Amino acid sequence: MAAPVTVYGPAISPAVARVAACLLEKDVPFQLEAVDMSKGEHKSPSFLKLQPFGQVPAFKDHLTTVFESRAICRYICDQYSDRGNQTLLGRKEDGAVGRAAIEQWVESEGQAFNPPSLAIAFQLTFAPLMGMATDMAVVEQNEAKLAKVLDVYERRLAESQYFAGDEFTLADLVHMPNTDLLVSKAGKAGLITERKNLSRWWDEVSARPSWKKVVELQSVPRPSKA
Amino acid sequence: MAAPVTVYGPAISPAVARVAACLLEKDVPFQLEAVDMSKGEHKSPSFLKLQPFGQVPAFKDHLTTVFESRAICRYICDQYSDRGNQTLLGRKEDGAVGRAAIEQWVESEGQAFNPPSLAIAFQLTFAPLMGMATDMAVVEQNEAKLAKVLDVYERRLAESQYFAGDEFTLADLVHMPNTDLLVSKAGKAGLITERKNLSRWWDEVSARPSWKKVVELQSVPRPSKA
Repeated sequence: MAAPVTVYGPAISPAVARVAACLLEKDVPFQLEAVDMSKGEHKSPSFLKLQPFGQVPAFKDHLTTVFESRAICRYICDQYSDRGNQTLLGRKEDGAVGRAAIEQWVESEGQAFNPPSLAIAFQLTFAPLMGMATDMAVVEQNEAKLAKVLDVYERRLAESQYFAGDEFTLADLVHMPNTDLLVSKAGKAGLITERKNLSRWWDEVSARPSWKKVVELQSVPRPSKA
Repeated sequence: MAAPVTVYGPAISPAVARVAACLLEKDVPFQLEAVDMSKGEHKSPSFLKLQPFGQVPAFKDHLTTVFESRAICRYICDQYSDRGNQTLLGRKEDGAVGRAAIEQWVESEGQAFNPPSLAIAFQLTFAPLMGMATDMAVVEQNEAKLAKVLDVYERRLAESQYFAGDEFTLADLVHMPNTDLLVSKAGKAGLITERKNLSRWWDEVSARPSWKKVVELQSVPRPSKA
C-alpha cells in the first residue's frame, strides 16, 4: 500500500525537514517525492497546483493538499491528533490558552529567527554548493540580527525547559532545521554553544529519535520512504 | 467595567491594526493602550514580560498574554469562537482541512507578502515621518519581490472570491494592514489596481465595517476605547 502522505522536496531543505520532523513526531508514515529543481519541476503547472509559489515543500494526503511548512505542521497536528506525540500543539484540556503559548513562539520563529538564520545558512552552506560566492557582509549583518533574537531565546530558556513550557512542542520543532544548519553545516555552532540555556535546549531536542531520523534522511542522496 | 481585552501599541502599526481588525470582526470589546516608544516603554521590564522582543503589539485578556500579531489573531478566533464572525478560521464542520486551507495563506502573508510590503511601506511612509531619508533602491528591490507574490495572488483571486474560498477569513484579514499602507499611504495603489482580481478583492474587503473602524482608530491621535 502506498504511504498516505507525500511530501514533495529534498530533506536537505530546512522547510522540508521541518515537515518531516513533524510527521516523525506524529508517527504518520510518509514518502518524500523528488522535485528536480535543476529541471524546473518546481515551476511546472502540476507542481504549481500543489504549491502556487513554486517552492518546496508541497504536501498531499488522502484528504487535501497544503503548502507553507508551518501551515503543514499545524495541519498534521490537527488532522492526525490521535497519533504519535499528541501534545505538539498543546494539551486538549489547556484549550486556546495552551495553543497560543505555543503559537507565539512558532510565529517568532517564522518572523524573527528564520530570516537571519536562513540568510546565514544560505551564504555559508548552500551558496558554495551552488558554486556561488559567499557574501560575508550579508553573513555579518544577519549574525548581528540573529544574536538579538538568540538573546531573547536564551532568557526564555532560562525560565522554562522548552519554548512553551515543560514539554517539547511545535514551538521547539520549527526552530530545529535552521539551528541544525548553523551548528552542523555553517560552522556557526558558537551562536548556540556560547548561550548556556540554548545549548542545553539544543542538546535535548536534537537527541530526539524523530530528529535523528531527519538527519538520516538528509544524508540519503535520493529521497526514500520514511 | 474595564474592557476585558487590552492591545498595547498604536493603531498606525500594521501589526496592531491586524489584531484590532480581528477583534472587531469577532465583536470582542477591547482597549488600545499607549506604548510610548519615544520614551523606550517597549523596552521596559514590564513590557518585556508581555512581549519579550520589545515590539508592538502585546495582548492581554482575563486568561493570558500573547505576542506576535498572527498568533494573537489565532488565539482570538479560538478563544472567542462563539462571538462575531465565527468562520474566520474555518467552519467547525470542515475541521482540520478547512483550517489548513486558511492557514496556508496566513503563512504566505507572513513569509512572502509581509517582508517586501512592509519594507516598501517603511521607506515611503514611516521613514519620512521619522525624519529619515527614503532609500529608493530598497523600495525598488522590494517592489520586484512583491510583484511576484502579487502575481500569485492575482491568479488565486481569479479562482476564488477570497484567499481561502467563498468566505472572508483570517487569510484575507492578515493581508489588509500592509495592503492599506501601500494603497492609502505609500503611493503604491497601482500594485493593487493594475491587477484586476486583487483590485476587486481589495474593494470588497476594505469596505467591511471592521476595517472602516480600524481606519477610524488610526486617525485618532491618541489611543481610545473601541
